[in-house]
Amino acid sequence: MDKPIRFSTEFTVEWGDCDPARIVFYPHYFYWFDTCFQHWLRQAGLSQALLTERYQVVGTPILEAHARFLVSSTDGDRLQATARIERFDPKRFRIDYELWRDGRLLVEGWEIRAWVARIDDRLRSLPIPPEFAAALAEASQGEIPPASVAPGPPG
Amino acid sequence: MDKPIRFSTEFTVEWGDCDPARIVFYPHYFYWFDTCFQHWLRQAGLSQALLTERYQVVGTPILEAHARFLVSSTDGDRLQATARIERFDPKRFRIDYELWRDGRLLVEGWEIRAWVARIDDRLRSLPIPPEFAAALAEASQGEIPPASVAPGPPG
Amino acid sequence: MDKPIRFSTEFTVEWGDCDPARIVFYPHYFYWFDTCFQHWLRQAGLSQALLTERYQVVGTPILEAHARFLVSSTDGDRLQATARIERFDPKRFRIDYELWRDGRLLVEGWEIRAWVARIDDRLRSLPIPPEFAAALAEASQGEIPPASVAPGPPG
Amino acid sequence: MDKPIRFSTEFTVEWGDCDPARIVFYPHYFYWFDTCFQHWLRQAGLSQALLTERYQVVGTPILEAHARFLVSSTDGDRLQATARIERFDPKRFRIDYELWRDGRLLVEGWEIRAWVARIDDRLRSLPIPPEFAAALAEASQGEIPPASVAPGPPG
Repeated sequence: MDKPIRFSTEFTVEWGDCDPARIVFYPHYFYWFDTCFQHWLRQAGLSQALLTERYQVVGTPILEAHARFLVSSTDGDRLQATARIERFDPKRFRIDYELWRDGRLLVEGWEIRAWVARIDDRLRSLPIPPEFAAALAEASQGEIPPASVAPGPPG
Repeated sequence: MDKPIRFSTEFTVEWGDCDPARIVFYPHYFYWFDTCFQHWLRQAGLSQALLTERYQVVGTPILEAHARFLVSSTDGDRLQATARIERFDPKRFRIDYELWRDGRLLVEGWEIRAWVARIDDRLRSLPIPPEFAAALAEASQGEIPPASVAPGPPG
Repeated sequence: MDKPIRFSTEFTVEWGDCDPARIVFYPHYFYWFDTCFQHWLRQAGLSQALLTERYQVVGTPILEAHARFLVSSTDGDRLQATARIERFDPKRFRIDYELWRDGRLLVEGWEIRAWVARIDDRLRSLPIPPEFAAALAEASQGEIPPASVAPGPPG
Repeated sequence: MDKPIRFSTEFTVEWGDCDPARIVFYPHYFYWFDTCFQHWLRQAGLSQALLTERYQVVGTPILEAHARFLVSSTDGDRLQATARIERFDPKRFRIDYELWRDGRLLVEGWEIRAWVARIDDRLRSLPIPPEFAAALAEASQGEIPPASVAPGPPG
């Protein structure tokens, strides 16, 4: 993989995603990170269920996750999500996420995911099959249009 | 505050917290991080509602969150959660979390929280009142007993 | 209001909405019921925040909710949701919901919602303003096209 | 089974369970219904994972669910939950739930659950094994103490 691959999708912040401070309860942002990756899988003709069936993996569990919250969001906001993978390591890969609203960056973060199978009832990390990386690259949406990534004024 | 302050509580992993891989859907760990802090607030005689009423803040929103997932957990597991604050900065503080099961560290992470009020419909960071830090310190449970922090064998 | 009013929207079942049985964890269906109503509000130029500001209500809390689950759904399924209101009672109204996938009815249910304000820190039921019902009727999408409501074979 | 069987447990309403109206987002009550049943299973020495292993069922999926919300609850409230089963039908059973706070009934509702196995990738309803009903009966906590069920004044 000679250059980063990318994927974009969208979400709506719903009433039930917000807490009594009238802003998103922050664990939901990680739900959107995960869901953005699931959308990418589907765009690549894959799904967690298919990965399990084809490779006996229990999915791509998270080893590490991080987020920085720059601007809050609330009920009704439309979020543009982008995911980017710079490279695949032998047994893991990192996805960088950004969530935008109207050209303003709200949240940035990342997940490190492993390729893990349940063997003898223990979870074991295994090498990522090259065709998995290739399928995500095939579904890559190339450069994100400049209009959607222009940073807004500081929050 | 001359030494770190600490708080411990417990959670049960429920069926509805787990995903089709039969392990906790990872955003839920951040729910437990947040909830551990809310329990500490209550132990200190506080709550988000009380903070809002007393200081006009919209709570203690998260600026940054991080987690490292070492060992998976599933439906029925009992988690021991510990939170620790090393110090309070003028407008923010960091809470370090650990989640344990039967003497084995499952998840470690942290949140950075700010003290934020809604002024003219914008969220603004303000200095943390000393009595807030004092109340959390007062509710600190001191050193965590060694038995519960001995690391288990690698996961 | 001389005939029922209706609204349709769509949702995707995500990985994080499913439980270890590989099907939607059932409380999420109520999230989609609620969210379908919130989409209708927005289509009508309203939102819970706006209702609070304009009428001092604390939203439209649920008095009663019901669902019957006919066919299961899982990660990646696209759901067509329809909401229908037959009439508004003085202080409450009932919304009937249906969730479909590819012309097959998966879930049907309803909510009874009240018009409630917080007065002297107690929640009190109040008469629904006629312009609220009118706004929802204005955003009504009329008859749902037959194609999307033809019942599939029994589940 | 000649008389109803019962089980009680407790929950805490957390910050992340509440919506911008400062009350529980109602789908969470169904999470507590489900979780109350899971606690009962564990008290009976069972779990969804064990049921799957022992009987090849995909758990006890919900056919129908209902709730009536009498009094709201918020962050920090301690809920007493009771579950009751009157009888087991050949392939399904109904659980009645009540959620109380300080002797006041907040929510009442029920679930109808089936005994379902995945056969040829389709979910099929099967007869409930008598020893399953017997295990829940064995874990029954008999009559709920009067103190905890005395109805409070109307909400």
